[in-house]
Amino acid sequence: MDGATARKTISEVNLMDYEEFIKVFGNVIEHCLLCAAAVWRYRPFKSVKHLYEEICTFVDQLPGSGREGILRSHPDLAGRVAMQGQLTAESTREQRTAGMADLTPQERDHLLQMNKRYREKFGFPFVICARLNRKDVILESLEVRLDNPAEVELEKGIAEVKKICQLRLSDLLESEAVK
Amino acid sequence: MDGATARKTISEVNLMDYEEFIKVFGNVIEHCLLCAAAVWRYRPFKSVKHLYEEICTFVDQLPGSGREGILRSHPDLAGRVAMQGQLTAESTREQRTAGMADLTPQERDHLLQMNKRYREKFGFPFVICARLNRKDVILESLEVRLDNPAEVELEKGIAEVKKICQLRLSDLLESEAVK
Repeated sequence: MDGATARKTISEVNLMDYEEFIKVFGNVIEHCLLCAAAVWRYRPFKSVKHLYEEICTFVDQLPGSGREGILRSHPDLAGRVAMQGQLTAESTREQRTAGMADLTPQERDHLLQMNKRYREKFGFPFVICARLNRKDVILESLEVRLDNPAEVELEKGIAEVKKICQLRLSDLLESEAVK
Repeated sequence: MDGATARKTISEVNLMDYEEFIKVFGNVIEHCLLCAAAVWRYRPFKSVKHLYEEICTFVDQLPGSGREGILRSHPDLAGRVAMQGQLTAESTREQRTAGMADLTPQERDHLLQMNKRYREKFGFPFVICARLNRKDVILESLEVRLDNPAEVELEKGIAEVKKICQLRLSDLLESEAVK
């Protein structure tokens, strides 16, 4: 979304009831509504940054299985879910921005193969903040990251999840932007 | 659901791909797909009990905010979401079993008022395993539990969430039942 008309201020967020809060922020971590449900307790938020930091703290406090679960809740780039048009609204926009809809058949095949190898090696999918990277950088990163040990990739994947969250919050909230 | 035709064996579960696993088990903890996403790493499951215990362990390892978030993801008994027919399939059946669809207007008003007081006091809704309790017991429990301190209610609510999860698993899986 361009967000220009719909962006909320943090004061408006603090006035939301729980249901509205979840409707707005339930997918800032892809498919992990629990993250928004957990940070509800920290209202009133002093700033967008405060909201963002509480989400990050919650993610960091999860056991390793939970952080892996967050990665597993992300769709493959240009994968089956994307091809079938079943991505969340947020992921659809993000993958399009990164040029995932404009891959040549060869690039797409190569990406799918590397995604598969990555998932087989680590037990979770390759996650990268698509909006901050173009398709050539994404393909290159995937190649490089395939060689990392699992604990490094868990950490790198979660760092990307936080960037995605930060941008999703910036789309939803007034520009006292998350820095 | 009666589940008689659709129940899976644990061996069938261990053969599922991630997508199918999430489709089947994504709501055994209401709206908290992350719980199923997290325990995927513990396959192959030795038994239904093993799967159940990993889910419980994950829930217990969550920070307090996350356990509160799980409670907050549950709908009020006979509340607005139920009245509007927007409960998950599982909750619809469970609330019906407990007689929540057959409350007199007076009983319903009383329940709504107590739910409201509970939510205001604790910051999360009253959660009870509806299938194991009839409506008079539910109304009585709510009255009694309103007097508890928050930390006791967090613990009691999560214990009920686990019972709900256990019954949902029993609906989905062959009867080497979760004991």
